[in-house]
Amino acid sequence: MSLEKARRLENTGPPGPSGQAESIDERPDGAPDGLRRPTIASVASAAAVSRQTVSNVINAPHRVGEQTRRRVERAIAEAGYRPLKTAQALRTRRSNLIAVGIPNADGARNLLIEGFLHALTVEAQRRGYRILLVTGADDASEIKAYDELLTDYDIDALVFTGTHRGDQRIPWLLNKGTRFVTFGRPWGTKAAHPWVDVDGAGGVRDATEHLIEIGHQRIAFIGWPGGSGVGEDRLSGWEQACRTAGLPLRDLSRRIEDGLEQGRQACASLLDSPKAPTAIVCVSDTLAVGAWVEVTARGGRPGRDVAIIGFDDSPMASMIGLSSVAQPLSAAAAVCVDCVQSLNRSTGTSMTAPLQVLLAPKLIVRASG
Amino acid sequence: MSLEKARRLENTGPPGPSGQAESIDERPDGAPDGLRRPTIASVASAAAVSRQTVSNVINAPHRVGEQTRRRVERAIAEAGYRPLKTAQALRTRRSNLIAVGIPNADGARNLLIEGFLHALTVEAQRRGYRILLVTGADDASEIKAYDELLTDYDIDALVFTGTHRGDQRIPWLLNKGTRFVTFGRPWGTKAAHPWVDVDGAGGVRDATEHLIEIGHQRIAFIGWPGGSGVGEDRLSGWEQACRTAGLPLRDLSRRIEDGLEQGRQACASLLDSPKAPTAIVCVSDTLAVGAWVEVTARGGRPGRDVAIIGFDDSPMASMIGLSSVAQPLSAAAAVCVDCVQSLNRSTGTSMTAPLQVLLAPKLIVRASG
Repeated sequence: MSLEKARRLENTGPPGPSGQAESIDERPDGAPDGLRRPTIASVASAAAVSRQTVSNVINAPHRVGEQTRRRVERAIAEAGYRPLKTAQALRTRRSNLIAVGIPNADGARNLLIEGFLHALTVEAQRRGYRILLVTGADDASEIKAYDELLTDYDIDALVFTGTHRGDQRIPWLLNKGTRFVTFGRPWGTKAAHPWVDVDGAGGVRDATEHLIEIGHQRIAFIGWPGGSGVGEDRLSGWEQACRTAGLPLRDLSRRIEDGLEQGRQACASLLDSPKAPTAIVCVSDTLAVGAWVEVTARGGRPGRDVAIIGFDDSPMASMIGLSSVAQPLSAAAAVCVDCVQSLNRSTGTSMTAPLQVLLAPKLIVRASG
Repeated sequence: MSLEKARRLENTGPPGPSGQAESIDERPDGAPDGLRRPTIASVASAAAVSRQTVSNVINAPHRVGEQTRRRVERAIAEAGYRPLKTAQALRTRRSNLIAVGIPNADGARNLLIEGFLHALTVEAQRRGYRILLVTGADDASEIKAYDELLTDYDIDALVFTGTHRGDQRIPWLLNKGTRFVTFGRPWGTKAAHPWVDVDGAGGVRDATEHLIEIGHQRIAFIGWPGGSGVGEDRLSGWEQACRTAGLPLRDLSRRIEDGLEQGRQACASLLDSPKAPTAIVCVSDTLAVGAWVEVTARGGRPGRDVAIIGFDDSPMASMIGLSSVAQPLSAAAAVCVDCVQSLNRSTGTSMTAPLQVLLAPKLIVRASG
């Protein structure tokens, strides 16, 4: 390893009182596994200087004479010495740890959040951050888990998803003064905090406009019941696109709970109506798969007989050739890490300059639409 | 917080040289966020003792007189003081961090691994461990990422998945002496290391026996091409169950790459053959969904006209009512954490007593079978 690399690994934050580093960096010789590594002591011995001098070369090089500094730097490079991050964190107040809250509701899984976590891990690692996971079954138990995490670890920021009306996590974190970023905008609150979200209305508008372009004139929408901010937002995209193109809306929407059977029924009700649509946009892939199954079960072929477009580009969508609106999870993850870096550069509280980013989703056209 | 809790949070590993704790635990007063917390210094001041005495009460209570100890314990409880885990890790050589390797192949996702990671996070948190993520696109880049992680962090153990023939990670970690557990047995190697896996042959045998019990006499199998250890293992379960029941195997298996279209074609080829099966067991849910779509597209109803059973109990399976063999992800996660705890208790190298556990999967019967 080059010395430059060894120096770069030193964080630029203010060093703690000199003289601490060596005792922190030390690892007992009796380390039980193969992780034994060069220590300040072994570097000091190789360079024939004191441990304090090695510590100074790393943390306060101006205190060390030119010749000695060079000798110590050579010894550091030859030994491949790097301070442990845990020790660095205590000195620099930057842990390079990002905690990520993931939901745990009775073993239920959220594929979108899992995809986001995947993208976040890749993006964070690329920039030298590590992801530490924390989970809870609801707002209250997530808050309890955050509290324990914040007591135990000196994290740089917290990232979580699934923001919703009456979200208890946001006021708790604001009150605590913890730096955090949400994937999902705040719904029904004026609280200002950094967030990244995807433009659901824009995504559904794109899907509807695509169907108009390929010739459809009666386009239906299967959405969720009222009360969901995300659901209303997506519905509005279908309304906008149809109104702009002068296409009808009446009798062409269905509002139901998410589920395959619900999607089948809503699709059947639309196809059996006097003026049946030739295309259906759905608020979710689950409902779209239901519509897809209904069309298939009637002997039709989705895309040829009835066009169907879902939302979220789930693994199922690619599996069955369902067109879908993809959330840009890698971009969302990159913006979250940007945001963490920007929060870390600020020296005041986290809330002075909230960063709020709405990303455009991308329509993935497959056989069904 | 009770004092008992504060004491429990101290790890039972050997304390470092006394006198270090106080300088490590200290956090500068200028901490930029709301995480400012009680320090050894504030506790010492409240109890009117030295910081060394507070440190001794925590790490070596036998050195402190009864009366002083009680006074300090009261001050600790009143202040809600807990040492930072990072500082503890340096003292005790137990970080309570479990690193988990997740694959990152060109944005491709593995839903099974994501489900396992979810279960592992819940289980680890329940027992006071934290999950730190690390990712790589292939064996070589995963090894590079492990190397960086092991240099930066003092983790308790590494957990990873996707073991395969010629897996380069296993010999690298064995050589390095790092403690690790794999979810997935080693394939084609004699290397001994701790692992947890699921009995694929047993799961497919259970599925086939279930179909025999409900009256099927011609049961087909759609599997992967030769060369996959996992695929051959699952195939053998179908062969065993049919042979034991005296049922035919000839012309009833198809071996194809994973994919919906492949599943449709294999299903069509089976249903169009002179002696068509009445039930089909598939090596994966993807192939089973393909078979499900083919039966549905022919106007049939899976389960009533042709029984279909998949493997992995993916979200798609529950959505369309596909029977499937579920891997016990929570149990696998629990065994992995057991294994980490057992490795941590051992003081020698990690390899003295490899723990190898094969778990039974569970057949989830739905409408399709």
